[in-house]
Amino acid sequence: MGEQFQQRKSQFNIGLIARIMGILIVINGIFMFMCLPFSFYFGGEDWFALMQSGVISILAGGLSVLYGEHRGYKREIKKKDGYIVVSLGWALMAFFGSLPYLFSHEIPSLTDAYFETISGFSTTGASILTDIEGVGKGILFWRSLTQWIGGMGIIVLAVAVLPFLGIGGMQLFVAEAPGISPDKLQPRIKETAKRLWWVYASLTVIETILLMTGGMSFYDALNHALTTMATGGFSTYNDSAASMSPYIQYILIFFMLLAGTNFTLNYFLFKRMFKAIWTNEEYRYYIGIIFLSTVSIGSVVAFTTDLGIEKSFRDAIFQVVSIMTTTGYVSADYTAWAPFATMIIFVLMFCGGMAGSTAGGVKIVRHIILFKNTFLELKRQLHPTAIIPVRFNSKAVKGGITFNVLAFIMAYFLIFGLGILVLSALGVDLMTSLGAVATSLGNIGPGVGSVGPVDNFAHLPDAVKWVLSFLMLLGRLELFTVMIIFTPYFWSRF
Amino acid sequence: MGEQFQQRKSQFNIGLIARIMGILIVINGIFMFMCLPFSFYFGGEDWFALMQSGVISILAGGLSVLYGEHRGYKREIKKKDGYIVVSLGWALMAFFGSLPYLFSHEIPSLTDAYFETISGFSTTGASILTDIEGVGKGILFWRSLTQWIGGMGIIVLAVAVLPFLGIGGMQLFVAEAPGISPDKLQPRIKETAKRLWWVYASLTVIETILLMTGGMSFYDALNHALTTMATGGFSTYNDSAASMSPYIQYILIFFMLLAGTNFTLNYFLFKRMFKAIWTNEEYRYYIGIIFLSTVSIGSVVAFTTDLGIEKSFRDAIFQVVSIMTTTGYVSADYTAWAPFATMIIFVLMFCGGMAGSTAGGVKIVRHIILFKNTFLELKRQLHPTAIIPVRFNSKAVKGGITFNVLAFIMAYFLIFGLGILVLSALGVDLMTSLGAVATSLGNIGPGVGSVGPVDNFAHLPDAVKWVLSFLMLLGRLELFTVMIIFTPYFWSRF
Repeated sequence: MGEQFQQRKSQFNIGLIARIMGILIVINGIFMFMCLPFSFYFGGEDWFALMQSGVISILAGGLSVLYGEHRGYKREIKKKDGYIVVSLGWALMAFFGSLPYLFSHEIPSLTDAYFETISGFSTTGASILTDIEGVGKGILFWRSLTQWIGGMGIIVLAVAVLPFLGIGGMQLFVAEAPGISPDKLQPRIKETAKRLWWVYASLTVIETILLMTGGMSFYDALNHALTTMATGGFSTYNDSAASMSPYIQYILIFFMLLAGTNFTLNYFLFKRMFKAIWTNEEYRYYIGIIFLSTVSIGSVVAFTTDLGIEKSFRDAIFQVVSIMTTTGYVSADYTAWAPFATMIIFVLMFCGGMAGSTAGGVKIVRHIILFKNTFLELKRQLHPTAIIPVRFNSKAVKGGITFNVLAFIMAYFLIFGLGILVLSALGVDLMTSLGAVATSLGNIGPGVGSVGPVDNFAHLPDAVKWVLSFLMLLGRLELFTVMIIFTPYFWSRF
Repeated sequence: MGEQFQQRKSQFNIGLIARIMGILIVINGIFMFMCLPFSFYFGGEDWFALMQSGVISILAGGLSVLYGEHRGYKREIKKKDGYIVVSLGWALMAFFGSLPYLFSHEIPSLTDAYFETISGFSTTGASILTDIEGVGKGILFWRSLTQWIGGMGIIVLAVAVLPFLGIGGMQLFVAEAPGISPDKLQPRIKETAKRLWWVYASLTVIETILLMTGGMSFYDALNHALTTMATGGFSTYNDSAASMSPYIQYILIFFMLLAGTNFTLNYFLFKRMFKAIWTNEEYRYYIGIIFLSTVSIGSVVAFTTDLGIEKSFRDAIFQVVSIMTTTGYVSADYTAWAPFATMIIFVLMFCGGMAGSTAGGVKIVRHIILFKNTFLELKRQLHPTAIIPVRFNSKAVKGGITFNVLAFIMAYFLIFGLGILVLSALGVDLMTSLGAVATSLGNIGPGVGSVGPVDNFAHLPDAVKWVLSFLMLLGRLELFTVMIIFTPYFWSRF
């Protein structure tokens, strides 16, 4: 039957969508089997749940692939299919990913299990677990792995999918990546993605080894390496990074910093192309913001506590890097700091890392465009007839991209506002709403209020957890990818 | 000497600026004399301070006019002169306006006196007075009068000055006003301004009479009418509107509603052109937002308290209208409501009234442009080559204006964020920072935290009061008017 019939029936390439969904779910299942060695080694009873989930995922995914083959599809993927693949893919992966929690009864509630999984795949790191150390080692490894898989997904999204879908400002970043044309999906993009995955995996291995030199067990080191590189922030310890040695904390800081960096620049790092890194405008702002925030917070903490200079500044840089890269490890309770220091951390929640990294949030490049444009608008007002474009990396940014970036940031704050209203309507207090929405939308992890750095999300009502799950997905997929599906334009054929 | 010499010496029309400043300060002085009858009637000792201040203002203003005449000036006012006249004018008026407080020792500190005066002229209504009823009646009338004068200033700004200076989106509103060309200052604009002042004054008189029918004394009625029409919110009572009868509260609600309406529409009301009012898109959103917010809050309050339906909904509509029109009267402590209701009030602080009213804040028209543009950006993403403009009042909005509006809203939130950081750095707690900055920038009056509806601003450190004073000025003058003066572009001759 094939294409003729299908074209009349649907404007979407359903066969291809089913095939891609299937492949994703199969991969998910294969990853589940990779958790079994840890189950067996630590003698946990969670191996059965993992195996069940893996088999179900591979079967379900396989069926979806077969359906896609049976239905037939065109190889060419269109924009609209792209939005569906990405949004549905993430949501479905999270559904299958929650099976190990459910089957092992480590997280008996579907709401909680889905929350924990989407928090993983979106590399957020918000958790409903109250006793992390009591969870089976196989399941706990799966939890870390969801973040690492999510991080891989984000890298391919950033270099290939989002620029193709035209998501606000991602074109700017891609123009910097070697050998990428933002106009359509090209074979060369596959090469780029592979290269960046290699960087991603290599850094994970190096971090694991370095953490082990600090005395961490292989298991804990690997788990933390997986969640660092994904800027995820799930830890295997109940108190996150608080009890870690200074040496290990510094290693985490360094690798969080790398994870929040455009992976193309990390590739340059491997190639020792240091000049190409430092001439990148976004990178200089990234380092500059971290430096300024650390100095401000460090000074405040040093003056207002008796922790001493080193500890104060270590806590400061750890939390600044952790929040700004949207990782979310916790070495100190930043809500207990002087208001000014806490406030800087809260503002950083809206900053985000570099585009092309695994970090979430608004992203620095967008803030640069925003600031420059606001400032230039004052110049435009004095010279209304002159055409004054924003310049980024010494090149003029097209008006349409600037517009798109502004619309993105607007959408971000609108959703933030709306999210707070919804949470308030569901009975959550003001501070917790602020914190929970900011941290979910920014894919960070800890918030403020009753979801602060030393709390978790377990006590929130189910409805709130679903809202936050949706916000994590929305934030991770750069808002527009998901929002666009809910517009009438998407469903019209023209 | 004259023009030739002056042109070489300065790019600004200093003679004309001095002349206008002088005239403004003289007018200020004349208004001070209008407070004397109340001083004498109530037998207060504040008449001497008012007379002193009036004489000093008239002398200083007169000298400035003479200097301007002596120096010589061109009659034509340029854009850059405009920014200076408006910003400096407001700041200087507030300086001379604070003299009565200082001379009478009702407010002995310069910081406090300036804060109270700029809060008046900017029609904010934030107060450092702890016992309003104990203040001399002449001085108290001056306090209300500063708001009314500020309101007059805003009307002329809105119809004549801001569109000429090209401030974000004000062109949109002006296109709606009869007989106005936004391109340059024209004689017809004088007519329009006069007509709207007449509407403003008439409504003040009508409100005074209506308040008296509710049992208010002439003095209290006049004071409240002055501060209602200016959307200022200074009251002569310590508890603002809380102890007023329902009848009087309803009158205040009605007139706040009018004061937050584009005064061109109020002019149509006098002319009974009802269709022209209802077909105005911004007006329909204005009423719609008030309706929705009132229903939401009223229901919550009715369910969570035992105040009864009428009182719950009266409190709801009173506070919704008071905050949204940026008036700031208080009939109930909205921070004591259920979080959802408080949150709506907080969100409304960023809403503002209609453009062309005396209300402050972002203004509804800008939110309309913002929402429509964000939504349309999703459509643009699906159809990247199509040109899809925002439509307002059924007309396509020029790209430049949309850009300007977005830049304005961005600037608003950037300044909001910066203001919170500065206040935190000065030791103010998070909630109070949020409230104080939002209410000052939006020219509202009450905030949240320790500057909530039943508190005042007296306890804040001096530095914080100066920051807030600046924010009130910034907000009142639509940000860009003031910000532009601090850019290098402004001071370059080209």
